[in-house]
Parts: sequence; structure tokens; C-alpha cells
Amino acid sequence: MQNFDYQTPTRLIFGKGVIRKLPDVMAAFGKKVLLTYGGGSIKKIGLYQKVLELLAGYEIVELPGIQPNPKYDPSVLEGVRLCKEHGIDVILAVGGGSVLDCSKAIAAGACYDGDPWDLITCKVKAKAALPIVDILTLAATGSEYDIYGVISRTETNDKIGYGDPLLFPVCSFLDPTYTFSVNRKQTAAGIADAMNHTIEQYFTEDTTLLNDGFCESMLRSLMVNGRKCLDNPEDYTARAEMMLCCTYGCNGILALGNTYSGWPCHAIEHALSAYYDITHGWGLAIITPRWMQHILSERTLDRFVKYGVNVFGIDASLDKWEIARKAIDETYAFFESIDIPMHLREVGIDESRIDEMAHHIAVNEGLEEAYVPLDEPAIKEILVASL
Amino acid sequence: MQNFDYQTPTRLIFGKGVIRKLPDVMAAFGKKVLLTYGGGSIKKIGLYQKVLELLAGYEIVELPGIQPNPKYDPSVLEGVRLCKEHGIDVILAVGGGSVLDCSKAIAAGACYDGDPWDLITCKVKAKAALPIVDILTLAATGSEYDIYGVISRTETNDKIGYGDPLLFPVCSFLDPTYTFSVNRKQTAAGIADAMNHTIEQYFTEDTTLLNDGFCESMLRSLMVNGRKCLDNPEDYTARAEMMLCCTYGCNGILALGNTYSGWPCHAIEHALSAYYDITHGWGLAIITPRWMQHILSERTLDRFVKYGVNVFGIDASLDKWEIARKAIDETYAFFESIDIPMHLREVGIDESRIDEMAHHIAVNEGLEEAYVPLDEPAIKEILVASL
Repeated sequence: MQNFDYQTPTRLIFGKGVIRKLPDVMAAFGKKVLLTYGGGSIKKIGLYQKVLELLAGYEIVELPGIQPNPKYDPSVLEGVRLCKEHGIDVILAVGGGSVLDCSKAIAAGACYDGDPWDLITCKVKAKAALPIVDILTLAATGSEYDIYGVISRTETNDKIGYGDPLLFPVCSFLDPTYTFSVNRKQTAAGIADAMNHTIEQYFTEDTTLLNDGFCESMLRSLMVNGRKCLDNPEDYTARAEMMLCCTYGCNGILALGNTYSGWPCHAIEHALSAYYDITHGWGLAIITPRWMQHILSERTLDRFVKYGVNVFGIDASLDKWEIARKAIDETYAFFESIDIPMHLREVGIDESRIDEMAHHIAVNEGLEEAYVPLDEPAIKEILVASL
Repeated sequence: MQNFDYQTPTRLIFGKGVIRKLPDVMAAFGKKVLLTYGGGSIKKIGLYQKVLELLAGYEIVELPGIQPNPKYDPSVLEGVRLCKEHGIDVILAVGGGSVLDCSKAIAAGACYDGDPWDLITCKVKAKAALPIVDILTLAATGSEYDIYGVISRTETNDKIGYGDPLLFPVCSFLDPTYTFSVNRKQTAAGIADAMNHTIEQYFTEDTTLLNDGFCESMLRSLMVNGRKCLDNPEDYTARAEMMLCCTYGCNGILALGNTYSGWPCHAIEHALSAYYDITHGWGLAIITPRWMQHILSERTLDRFVKYGVNVFGIDASLDKWEIARKAIDETYAFFESIDIPMHLREVGIDESRIDEMAHHIAVNEGLEEAYVPLDEPAIKEILVASL
């Protein structure tokens, strides 16, 4: 086991109707709130109105229109400007992972005099950040319980994940009923996202019975409950369990003491999204089985066997290589079964920029340190196999 | 799924040699430290000396001699007195769960003008508590990552568990090498304690695939790694995984969204310890299979089947009742196999005070609200079966 230093201070308030506690939580901060959200779905489900009603008496400045794969320009820059102009005390992020990720960059940028990009690229370490409270409306990224955000800069094809312990949300409101209206495509993308978070942490060294079991339970639960959410979008129990699973995705608890895996699928997918602005969870679903195929070897075989037997219930008495190949096939088949397009061409990506993306990933993502190191030709091979 | 409100702010610094970070952590508080510990084992392993060396320049007041099943009088009272007399800024607890539990009661008592017993019995809600840092030397109770403490008052046969979010340790140092010298008896008691914590949360309603899988992984890991610790006390990997497992025992993460189970075995064991001062983990091991026997019914059958199949690998194609009975037998057999005396008589408890204890438990522990409600005759039946 590796040494670790772990802390998750975020308060999770979970369940139907918990938003009634919002005024109590917000009372700990000042009266000037930056309300961040996306394309307006929170108005359709009445959540926007409810928040304004609960926060009567607060001075609320709005930053709407945060996009999926949230953009540095205009969202982060505009948010930082608003915080500074209005002397904002606290950010209330209402939406999914993109709104939260963007709000994290704003929270740090608001307390920094220079260009916020310095913080995102880790050139400068943030010294402070505004507190963030969030009300989650999409189960997927785990941003509600971690320190990370991913920000895209279109002009340079950068999609950068950054993190700082200052950026743990102070409090996350997790009401599964807010995810009832999430459509089939986004629900499936969320399942794939959370499954990939787990897989990224499962395939590594120095794993434990405990972590392996936790990851395997996550994957089984996400498949069972994810499918129920797709079949019946208002199945509270399934939406709730899926939401809880997603929450554990990225705060490290699935891999305490494991060797750092390098999160290779994320590294590759970030380039896909940066170049083509595709749905993150779809990109991960497409890459994952091809990456698995690439890393399967004598050295990694036992990991695949454990994964296949414990996650998919493949007969443990079969030949190890057969189990491993079946496990990869099952992974692919599950994503396909929830209607995720499983080829890059289906999401508008052809071979024209494969070389450029492979080079970008190899130069920027440090995958020579991954569980199975990936150099530029390896990355290209995975991308080509995904076409 | 039930609603929940969950937060675990404790920082966990885990691994070999992490004590070097102690001065950095302590620097956040003042210079006046109450150093709490037990019977002196920390001197034998050189930890006491190391702490003093690392904290040169601090004013250190000592409270040694904290016993297992820590006592209100003298330990809590003396600790509170020392804190007030010396204007203590922070408590540094070095030891196992008893030292930590006692330190929690002291931390709250030091910030309260009245009788600290008011806080422990929840007559008065604490308004503040001193910060606690701990260095754990025994893997068992989970007190290093939760809000709970258990304090005994010999003259009234009370052993009371209390909790307050103010009592999360600020930081827990978890170095598995400090547990190398834990003897066979205490190691086994720790395994049983952590297994029972998991079982108490597993047997309830509204469970999820995720929580069930997490609990089952804990139990499998505790049995495998616990046995390795007994066979080879200096097996770092096994001691480390056991330590991590124990840490999750009582902070709620194993049961987020589950219906509260009532922790019936703990309720019963607290009386055994209060009346006879036995080792907590032993008491739990003795009670657990008899409690299981008592609650096995048509209503609880499926829980036992899941437990038996997923924890002990019992053949799922057998008759459900056979699986359930085998699961209870396996539970008993595991505890017996790690040399825990499995009868109350073996730990000095005979029938003479069974009625008195059953009455005490029925009146004080609220077990009519448990997963399977237990009234006084039921409690007596479990105690008698444990003789």
C-alpha cells in the first residue's frame, strides 16, 4: 500500500426535499451570491424559482449559460469579473459537473489578481478561493465531492483538469428528484463517466481487497441502477443510488493506498473533447474498451480476470485470457446497450486530426507514468481503434 | 433510500513514517498540548519519545494511564481539569480507540463549565470542543474517523456512547507499523470489533447494492488481512489494509441512505463491559452470532443469504435457510478460529447478573427501534444463549 494524505470536508445533504436546508447553509456566508447555471433546465424543473424564493433577501448576481465542457472564455472570465465587481461572498452552483467545474475555476480566480489561467495550468498555486455551495442536477462527474475541475480553451484545443483542496464544495445538495428530467443521452453519459472513473482507479498496482471490492460494487451498482434510470427516469431509488455512486467517483476514496494510475482514458478523452467538443461520458465509453484491449498483457491479465469475474460474473473456471477478453467485450456491450455510439466517426471525429491529437496527448498528459505507460504511437493506436 | 446529512472533515495521513508531518499539523494550533495515552506501550515502541522530540518547543501536559473501556473517573475528569488549569490549546491522543474516546470527552468537557457527564449523556449539547489530533496505535474502533466516544462510569454500570460533529479529530496519523506490536489478543479483538461495526450496518432495511458491496468487501478484507496480521504481526500490507478497514467502521460511510439499524450488538455489549469490564471486541464476537440466531426469520432471511453468499462464498444454489444457518456458523467459526473465547463464562460472566443486565439494556438502549426490535426477554435470551 502507498502512503496517502486524504480529506473530504464537503458536507453532503442528500435526499428528496433537502433543499429546504439551503437558507441554513447559506447563512454561514455573506449576502452576495453568484448564482451559476447552464442552459436553463433548472428553470424548466422549477429549481431556479425555488432557489430565488429560498434566498429572498440575498443579493444575487447571475452567471447563466455555462456550457458542457465549460469554457474559459467567456464563462470563467465573466464569472471572475462578476465576483470582483460585486464583491461576491459565495458561489451557488446549480447544475451538473460542468457548472460546478466552471464555478471552481471562478472561485479561485476571484481571489487572484492575475490571469486565472495561471491557476488552471498550475503555474501559480491558489492562496484562497470563494466558498462554493452546489445543488446538483446531474449524476456523473463527482465534482460535487472533489477538488477537481476541467476547463476548456477552444482557441488552443486545451482541456485541462486541475485541482486544489481549496475547491472542495463546502456543501453539496444532492436531491435525486432533480435528475428525473435528465434525458436518456445524458443519463447514459453519466453512467459511463462514473463507470470510467471507477475503472481508471481499479486498473493499477498496489490495490487492496477493500478498494477492489468497493470499485466492483460501484460498477455493478452503476450498471444495474443506471439501466433502471434509463427504463424509468422517475425511479427514485435507482436515481438515488446512481447519484451516490457518482459522488464517490473522483475524491480518491476508491483508491486510497493504490498506486496512481494516471487516468489514461481521461487524458485521451480530454483531447477528443477539446478538439471536437463531444460529450465527455461518450468519449470515455468509446475509449475505455480500446484502451483495455491495448493494455491487456501477461502483466495485466490477473486484473482483467478479477474485473471480469467480480463485475460481470464471468465463470472463474474459464481460461484467464478468455475471461479477460470476455470482460472487455462485456464492457463494450454494456455501453452499446445503453445507446452510446461506440465509434468516434459516429460523434463526428474522423482520422484527419488523429496524429495531432495523439501528439497533443503525448506531450501534455504524462501518460508515460500511467499504469501501463502510453507513448505517442500507443495513444494513436488506441485512437485509431476507436474510429 | 433514506435522506442523510454527511460530513467527515478529518484529515487522514496514512502510511509508514508519516509522523514526520506532525509538526506541520500541530503548527495550526497553539503551543499548549495535552498528551493523552494509555498504559505505556507507546514508550515501548519509541513513539512517545519520537512525539516529544518532534514537539520540542511545545508545552506538553500529560494524561497517562487511560484504560480500555475508558473511565469517566478519573480519566475524563482529570483530563478536563488539566485542560482548564493549563489553558490547553489542542489534545494529542496517542494510542487506540480508548485513548481517543476519552480524549473526545475531555475535548468537549474542557469547553464546558458544568459537569462533563451532562455532555456524555446528551443532557446538554456541546457548544465547542478543543481540537484533537491523534496518532493511532491499534486498528479497531474507527474512533479516528468518527464523532463517537464511549465512556464508562463504574459506580453506575454505565457505558455510554455519545457523539458530536465537534468531536471529529482534526487529523489522524495512521502508521501501520505502530500496530506491529499489538498482541494476538488485541489484534483479534480489533478484527472482531471492525467486523461487527460492519455487520451492525449491513443488517438493516433500505440497503443498496453499493453499500452492501462495500460492507461485504470490508468483511472479506478484515478476515483475510486480519488472519495475516495474526500469522505475521509485521506484515505491513496486511496491517495497513486492516487499519484502513477499521477506519471506515463508524463514520457512516458503510450505510449512507440505509435505515438506522440500532446497533443492537453494541447496545448489548456495552452492558457486558460496563458490568464486567471485558474486552469490547471479544464481547461483540460472543454476542454477534447469538443475536444473528435470534433475528433469523422469514423477514430477515434474504439478508442472511446475501451475507452468506457474498461474504463466506456459500453456494448460492443451496436452500435459503441452509445458507443462512451456515452463514451464522461461519461467523462463529471465524471468531473462534482467531482464538476469541466464544462463551461469556470464559470471560468471567455467569448467569448471576443476566436479568439485571437485560433490564439495564432494555431500559437504556432503545432497542425497540432496532432492525429487529429487541425487548427485555429477547435481550435476555441472547445473553443466556451466549453463556
